Amino acid sequence: MSLVNVGTVAFDAIETPFGKTDKIIGGACTYISLAASYFTKGAKIISVVGDDFPKETIDMFSEKGISTEGLQIKEGEKTFFWSGKYHNDMNTRDTLDTQLNVLENFNPVVPDSYQDCEFLMLGNLAPTAQLQVINSFENRPKLIVLDTMNFWMEIAMADLKKVIKEIDVLTINDEEARLLSGEYSLRKAARIILEMGPKYLIIKKGEHGALLFDKENIFFAPALPLEEVFDPTGAGDTFAGGFIGYLAASGEVSWESMKSGIIMGSALASFTVEKFGIERLRDLTMGEIADRIGQFAELTNFKMEYPLVEENR
Amino acid sequence: MSLVNVGTVAFDAIETPFGKTDKIIGGACTYISLAASYFTKGAKIISVVGDDFPKETIDMFSEKGISTEGLQIKEGEKTFFWSGKYHNDMNTRDTLDTQLNVLENFNPVVPDSYQDCEFLMLGNLAPTAQLQVINSFENRPKLIVLDTMNFWMEIAMADLKKVIKEIDVLTINDEEARLLSGEYSLRKAARIILEMGPKYLIIKKGEHGALLFDKENIFFAPALPLEEVFDPTGAGDTFAGGFIGYLAASGEVSWESMKSGIIMGSALASFTVEKFGIERLRDLTMGEIADRIGQFAELTNFKMEYPLVEENR
Repeated sequence: MSLVNVGTVAFDAIETPFGKTDKIIGGACTYISLAASYFTKGAKIISVVGDDFPKETIDMFSEKGISTEGLQIKEGEKTFFWSGKYHNDMNTRDTLDTQLNVLENFNPVVPDSYQDCEFLMLGNLAPTAQLQVINSFENRPKLIVLDTMNFWMEIAMADLKKVIKEIDVLTINDEEARLLSGEYSLRKAARIILEMGPKYLIIKKGEHGALLFDKENIFFAPALPLEEVFDPTGAGDTFAGGFIGYLAASGEVSWESMKSGIIMGSALASFTVEKFGIERLRDLTMGEIADRIGQFAELTNFKMEYPLVEENR
Repeated sequence: MSLVNVGTVAFDAIETPFGKTDKIIGGACTYISLAASYFTKGAKIISVVGDDFPKETIDMFSEKGISTEGLQIKEGEKTFFWSGKYHNDMNTRDTLDTQLNVLENFNPVVPDSYQDCEFLMLGNLAPTAQLQVINSFENRPKLIVLDTMNFWMEIAMADLKKVIKEIDVLTINDEEARLLSGEYSLRKAARIILEMGPKYLIIKKGEHGALLFDKENIFFAPALPLEEVFDPTGAGDTFAGGFIGYLAASGEVSWESMKSGIIMGSALASFTVEKFGIERLRDLTMGEIADRIGQFAELTNFKMEYPLVEENR
């Protein structure tokens, strides 16, 4: 089914306890689209880059069946650049440099050929830009998933709440869920956030897995305990891409398909963190992915036997 | 099967963001034994209290089928007392007061009637006392589970390593696993700790669930997301008690039974934190426990369908 991914296509420079990179390919929409490509062909990108962005990467998207018609290339301008350094625990990081460049005046345009969109993934961007994309579709997509971050909650909460009202699934991390709801308990936070509009809420907890909520149910997907987290950059976006890619491939929007989607997203994210940037994600085999999904299933699988006190058996 | 639980039977005074208590009943062995009593009757306590300890509580143990023959009552002495205050996040706490009292010279004695022990749960105590108990059995129990804490790693690492060498299952939290192994990655930490002697390692992550490792496998049990954690005191001990109680009831020592045991422990711990002290744990019904276990099963249950790219289906 037709999938459109919106978000940044960018350059990153990353420093972790294991090493550092020069400018490498990054951006939310890059990770989302690559992850989704393992489930559904023909995903479409809406983003913007400068004329410094490598043609080989755009060709790589095409080879993976990802349409770049909606990827604007601004002549004489530079691509968005982010640089960060992770601390030893790999859970916290400092931003060393942010150069908005083309992103400063990004006006997301939906090409006519994207109007058949049924699944829409709005990666982290200014809420006004996200809302503009939603409003550019003549027919509302069947499922709209939105990712955002604490930054927008701090400087543009009113705009963010407007776009949250229009979507089906919100993906944020635990700290952001607490900030958005004003509640520490994630279960209480979820109830408040689900009153804001979305039917489903995904709370990402990094190495501690992810929670899915609707108004009645909770599902928990673990993160695979890894030998080493080499570079967490892009893990959340990979998760979102695997999630929406699986849903778009299945065509089904239900509690059951959401649960499977979260496992798929978690499995793909576990690859992304094994190397810098998109190095690991870009060339996975179906066998590797199937193996990893099998590991997830094993990880939480137990038998439902519960003899209570012996004499009651 | 015959189960012996060793550890403190004590008084606590607890302060949380929700309120504070006077002196209430606490202690690792108290929580362990109560939790285990829902799975196996006839568990036996080894511990020590002063003559200030209420007879009603000792009677309560008997009513629940828990033997207190190994519970020493020291005339003219006072029961171990701990007082603590939890911070707003409920994950960190300050110790306000510790009065060792009878614990200072605790010499754990194994009564003859305990010699048929097949399952031995060593709750948090000085490693020398834990080792003394192991050495007091004429026949080594079939399964020895040990709980400990960072305190002993800091002041008695050599003694602790001696006892760890003699056991089958070690239960510690994530911070302690890192301290004991010197590795941040829990997967690497597990490998190092399993070289120290135990066949199984359980890493408790509080609200983030628990991991079970043997040399080949990993299992992850989630924690149930709760509306409110009212008082975390005793959660880890309840977990251990549910775990060993289930194993003792099943009589089976295997990867599969360990997995089920961890779910049982997690389910019981999710009750303990709902009220102060043992208030919630002491009077559960089998129906409540079965419901909660059902919720755990639902929480991580997903279908193993993974259509990869659409054309591959």
